[in-house]
Amino acid sequence: MIITLKTGASPKEIQTVIRKIKSLGYTPHISRGVDKTIIGMIGERAEKFREIFEAMEIVDHISEIEKPYKLASREFKKENTIIKVNGVEIGAKKITVIAGPCAIEKKDRLMEIARVVKSAGAKGIRGGAFKPRTSPYAFQGMGEAGLKILSETKKATGLITVTEAMNISQIPLVAKYADIIQIGARNIQNYDLLKSVGKISKPVLLKRGMATTIKELLLSAEYIMAGGNHKVILCERGIRTFEDATRFTLDLNAIPVLKKLSHLPVFVDPSHGIGIREHVPAMAKAAVAAGADGILLEVHPKPEEALSDGPQSLLPEQFIRLMDELKILARAIGREI
Amino acid sequence: MIITLKTGASPKEIQTVIRKIKSLGYTPHISRGVDKTIIGMIGERAEKFREIFEAMEIVDHISEIEKPYKLASREFKKENTIIKVNGVEIGAKKITVIAGPCAIEKKDRLMEIARVVKSAGAKGIRGGAFKPRTSPYAFQGMGEAGLKILSETKKATGLITVTEAMNISQIPLVAKYADIIQIGARNIQNYDLLKSVGKISKPVLLKRGMATTIKELLLSAEYIMAGGNHKVILCERGIRTFEDATRFTLDLNAIPVLKKLSHLPVFVDPSHGIGIREHVPAMAKAAVAAGADGILLEVHPKPEEALSDGPQSLLPEQFIRLMDELKILARAIGREI
Amino acid sequence: MIITLKTGASPKEIQTVIRKIKSLGYTPHISRGVDKTIIGMIGERAEKFREIFEAMEIVDHISEIEKPYKLASREFKKENTIIKVNGVEIGAKKITVIAGPCAIEKKDRLMEIARVVKSAGAKGIRGGAFKPRTSPYAFQGMGEAGLKILSETKKATGLITVTEAMNISQIPLVAKYADIIQIGARNIQNYDLLKSVGKISKPVLLKRGMATTIKELLLSAEYIMAGGNHKVILCERGIRTFEDATRFTLDLNAIPVLKKLSHLPVFVDPSHGIGIREHVPAMAKAAVAAGADGILLEVHPKPEEALSDGPQSLLPEQFIRLMDELKILARAIGREI
Amino acid sequence: MIITLKTGASPKEIQTVIRKIKSLGYTPHISRGVDKTIIGMIGERAEKFREIFEAMEIVDHISEIEKPYKLASREFKKENTIIKVNGVEIGAKKITVIAGPCAIEKKDRLMEIARVVKSAGAKGIRGGAFKPRTSPYAFQGMGEAGLKILSETKKATGLITVTEAMNISQIPLVAKYADIIQIGARNIQNYDLLKSVGKISKPVLLKRGMATTIKELLLSAEYIMAGGNHKVILCERGIRTFEDATRFTLDLNAIPVLKKLSHLPVFVDPSHGIGIREHVPAMAKAAVAAGADGILLEVHPKPEEALSDGPQSLLPEQFIRLMDELKILARAIGREI
Repeated sequence: MIITLKTGASPKEIQTVIRKIKSLGYTPHISRGVDKTIIGMIGERAEKFREIFEAMEIVDHISEIEKPYKLASREFKKENTIIKVNGVEIGAKKITVIAGPCAIEKKDRLMEIARVVKSAGAKGIRGGAFKPRTSPYAFQGMGEAGLKILSETKKATGLITVTEAMNISQIPLVAKYADIIQIGARNIQNYDLLKSVGKISKPVLLKRGMATTIKELLLSAEYIMAGGNHKVILCERGIRTFEDATRFTLDLNAIPVLKKLSHLPVFVDPSHGIGIREHVPAMAKAAVAAGADGILLEVHPKPEEALSDGPQSLLPEQFIRLMDELKILARAIGREI
Repeated sequence: MIITLKTGASPKEIQTVIRKIKSLGYTPHISRGVDKTIIGMIGERAEKFREIFEAMEIVDHISEIEKPYKLASREFKKENTIIKVNGVEIGAKKITVIAGPCAIEKKDRLMEIARVVKSAGAKGIRGGAFKPRTSPYAFQGMGEAGLKILSETKKATGLITVTEAMNISQIPLVAKYADIIQIGARNIQNYDLLKSVGKISKPVLLKRGMATTIKELLLSAEYIMAGGNHKVILCERGIRTFEDATRFTLDLNAIPVLKKLSHLPVFVDPSHGIGIREHVPAMAKAAVAAGADGILLEVHPKPEEALSDGPQSLLPEQFIRLMDELKILARAIGREI
Repeated sequence: MIITLKTGASPKEIQTVIRKIKSLGYTPHISRGVDKTIIGMIGERAEKFREIFEAMEIVDHISEIEKPYKLASREFKKENTIIKVNGVEIGAKKITVIAGPCAIEKKDRLMEIARVVKSAGAKGIRGGAFKPRTSPYAFQGMGEAGLKILSETKKATGLITVTEAMNISQIPLVAKYADIIQIGARNIQNYDLLKSVGKISKPVLLKRGMATTIKELLLSAEYIMAGGNHKVILCERGIRTFEDATRFTLDLNAIPVLKKLSHLPVFVDPSHGIGIREHVPAMAKAAVAAGADGILLEVHPKPEEALSDGPQSLLPEQFIRLMDELKILARAIGREI
Repeated sequence: MIITLKTGASPKEIQTVIRKIKSLGYTPHISRGVDKTIIGMIGERAEKFREIFEAMEIVDHISEIEKPYKLASREFKKENTIIKVNGVEIGAKKITVIAGPCAIEKKDRLMEIARVVKSAGAKGIRGGAFKPRTSPYAFQGMGEAGLKILSETKKATGLITVTEAMNISQIPLVAKYADIIQIGARNIQNYDLLKSVGKISKPVLLKRGMATTIKELLLSAEYIMAGGNHKVILCERGIRTFEDATRFTLDLNAIPVLKKLSHLPVFVDPSHGIGIREHVPAMAKAAVAAGADGILLEVHPKPEEALSDGPQSLLPEQFIRLMDELKILARAIGREI
């Protein structure tokens, strides 16, 4: 990091900073301008000590040089990470589509949706058994009964399954029934939960929070990876901005930036991101064109009966049409679905 | 809620909506303009059914009329909630100042800080034993050993104590040692954690998340209150905006708005909010002038040795001076510290 | 609009609101719930009177029903607006690419760039003669000399030309030399400037401001159209959010939303939007996939010598490669470049 | 500035950067870590060349060291700037309150308001003759007739006057009738307008835009000062965030930050900032407590008849009460009103 001192720092004050840097085992690099002195402290993990210097009265500000995450970085691992789940290769040439209802509601309904999405080319089915709802009075999910339905749907169709764990105690249960554990946007900085999924071997789909920077998303991935689980899928799902014409602002800029900074697969969830059914296909197509490795989509045959997220769920016929368009698009950019 | 239909809705489509409203037990109120039809569905809990209508193709959009929270609302309870903790009345005429280091580091240090803040007029001591840190490589807190130090400090000084619980399993431990359990900004929508503190009787200090709207903050309070625990203290601590000259944008607008919408006490944390030591006093004074019921402040005698948040911690002499200023200010607005 | 009254409004207070609505020539539609009364005031231009009711003490809040813009709306004109400029049809099946340097610097340079972009398939050349720079000490543009160079480049290549007018007095000059007048993001609510370009017949490229909602963008377009000039091209170029890994957050969600709400052509400027050269192609492709009618791109053969925006300008070889990719993509979605 | 090179920069690439720095007349300061090389280029106006280096492929990123503004900075002028207007000292110990309607509507009304605000202790009257309205169909102001009314009100009461100029051609007119020229939030980056008010000698009240950073606000002030007019008053009036419970998010954090970075007086406009009448007093008090040098307030005796901003205008009796409270508060912090 680079430590910029306040204008008029005395030689004695400069020495205090230099001594501190040396005491931490680093070599200080001093540059003096006419009225500014800056001191470089370069080397692995230097960022760890950032606050020590920031807290000194004589320090004006700190500029970061090193990245604060390591295992998640492209510098640590050059080639793309490919995560294999029941024969599906996530992060490889093929783009993975995973679709389904927001919440699991009943067995027949999920099976019906699973058949539609599978025949249209999706590789996985999604659906929540534990639902993080803004209101305590809203439907909170079916719990284990929902997980069982998900598991039976998998057996019947061969689709891989994704579902959310909202707290540490749910992890064994979710890991038992599902192929991929989702950590939701609201838990992106629930660090104990991240540490817990870091200790198991199931792949984790990590959704960016609505106020999470790209750097923080990678730091949350680092929490999981530091525990030993390197099978992390990053997922952009919309950030919160002043714009209220859409539910969130799906930040597709994150796709090329994440692919550059990290080797992990990058998914996009346009259903939550834009939050308006008729606009979901445009954003799904844009995500594929921007380089996403996978797309999460909400599908429901009777959105007005859905217990959650009906307004943004595609109808089966809309989903089928979108899949046809995505397949053509994928080929146009040298990939496949 | 008010349901606005798309231009050109047919009588048949209008009937579908009306029938649905009736089937839910509400009376529809229909208003027809030249090319717009709007239908009112007014009554308690109508909001619960919002998504059902939003999901219908013929619906253009929904406008909310009722508030989605109830127990937290000023309409439910007119007079201010006063929470008594060891003789300290939170939410009453006296403004409560709670101060201390970001993290508990060692016994002597905490005791030293506690004596300073008490003699300056603070009523409580704060300090984290479990720390939510952005990086997995940063200091994560002392755990139970820290809680014990906090508890001993309380015995020695009589200060009430506030500390954070980051997950469900920590709640019994934190409740055993501390007077007030803090739910941090990053856990504001960790609904299982909210439900858990809803089942105990200890007061909860609930920090607004960095992308949480005022409505969502009240909904998170509702999660706790719906479980039976009505002792909730709301705390503004800065939201995330485009401005990067400050760590966060401390949103003091939330104070009058929350005091209007809710009967719960409202605290402000200017240390995290603005994140720059020399600017904390200005924001603490502004918070008092705007009507805050309490102020949380970070204090540390050697910020450059602090294991967390040194850059925003006040020095003891700064804290003492600020307390003198706050006392004068409080009297000027008809309150006390 | 829908007027929601405060809980406990008396019959007399309700009458005051009703009388006011009638005095403005509208029919009030009253709906009474258990403790809420709401009154509909539906009809053309009702929004105009919004503040009158919002200012009344008894009014809790107003919900909008009608759109506040008219000429720019899809309801006013169902079919897409196609703007013809020297044989180029903007807003039709073909996607229009307009490329060039941020600022016009010297004749040879612009001619060199024009030849590259034309041979790669662009239909227009862009470049600023008047530059809105954040710092007063930065290069402010060549002025009329730059416009002349732009005009000569057009003669030599046949490309259509786009350049910015920053104030009213520059409009005649810019209109004399350029085919399309750009109104920059920083002038999106410079209403006198909008009115001025509303009185001429040249097409206007209207860039969304960094804090402009989609509704406000359409209202700014309405300012131009209300003056008689209906040739408005809307352009998304990035909004300001908390994310600092990119220069702005290019909001591609705006594309389907604008295409739905308005009949005007929608362009995207990924160069300013993401602001990082290597990530511009991904966003240009995403914009095409999402349905943009045109793309603005910055191209410069020696970015490190550019007087403005070097960091986000594509090198000629990058531009050529991107154009090849965009052509394939355009065909994949049933369009052309 | 500090130039961080990409990992693995070759000696030849490093030399290219060094040569460029030398060619611009600066001395490069090179620091080499294990895999990172950073090069300092320190000195006045170094920032001017930022984009040249940012545009180089081998450069990873640039960290700013110097401030990009000079005349507006506290480093350029240590003591507070005091602007004298007809005996009123703006920026001195006394806090200046300027109040009035949003728009000038008719003579009697303005005179009535002027008498109220004067007797309550305000030093100035505000009111717009040229109104920047989001909708082209809303009231656009009385123009010169309004300025004449403002001028007559001044003669009758002795209050100093503030009104907005929206474009260059209005400046002579506004300067003829008013004491202080306001540049509105929507024109904060209308650089030609800033340059124009930089050439006159009237004080300028410069309102921060809704997406303007503190740094950019100071750069806009620098535009005015670079032209020779150093009488600039900075004004915080709310920024745009995701929070929709308030009209804008009044950013009081800007007060201490601006007072630290700049010698210019800092005003706050809580009426536009929070935008809800009943919450304006809380924010006015908070602004005073945070160190504002002046407060702008909207006052209207019949808000429901106001042609603009009725919902946020204080009633005369509310204004009188607030002034009493502000006077007590000002004394409590060692100032006066």
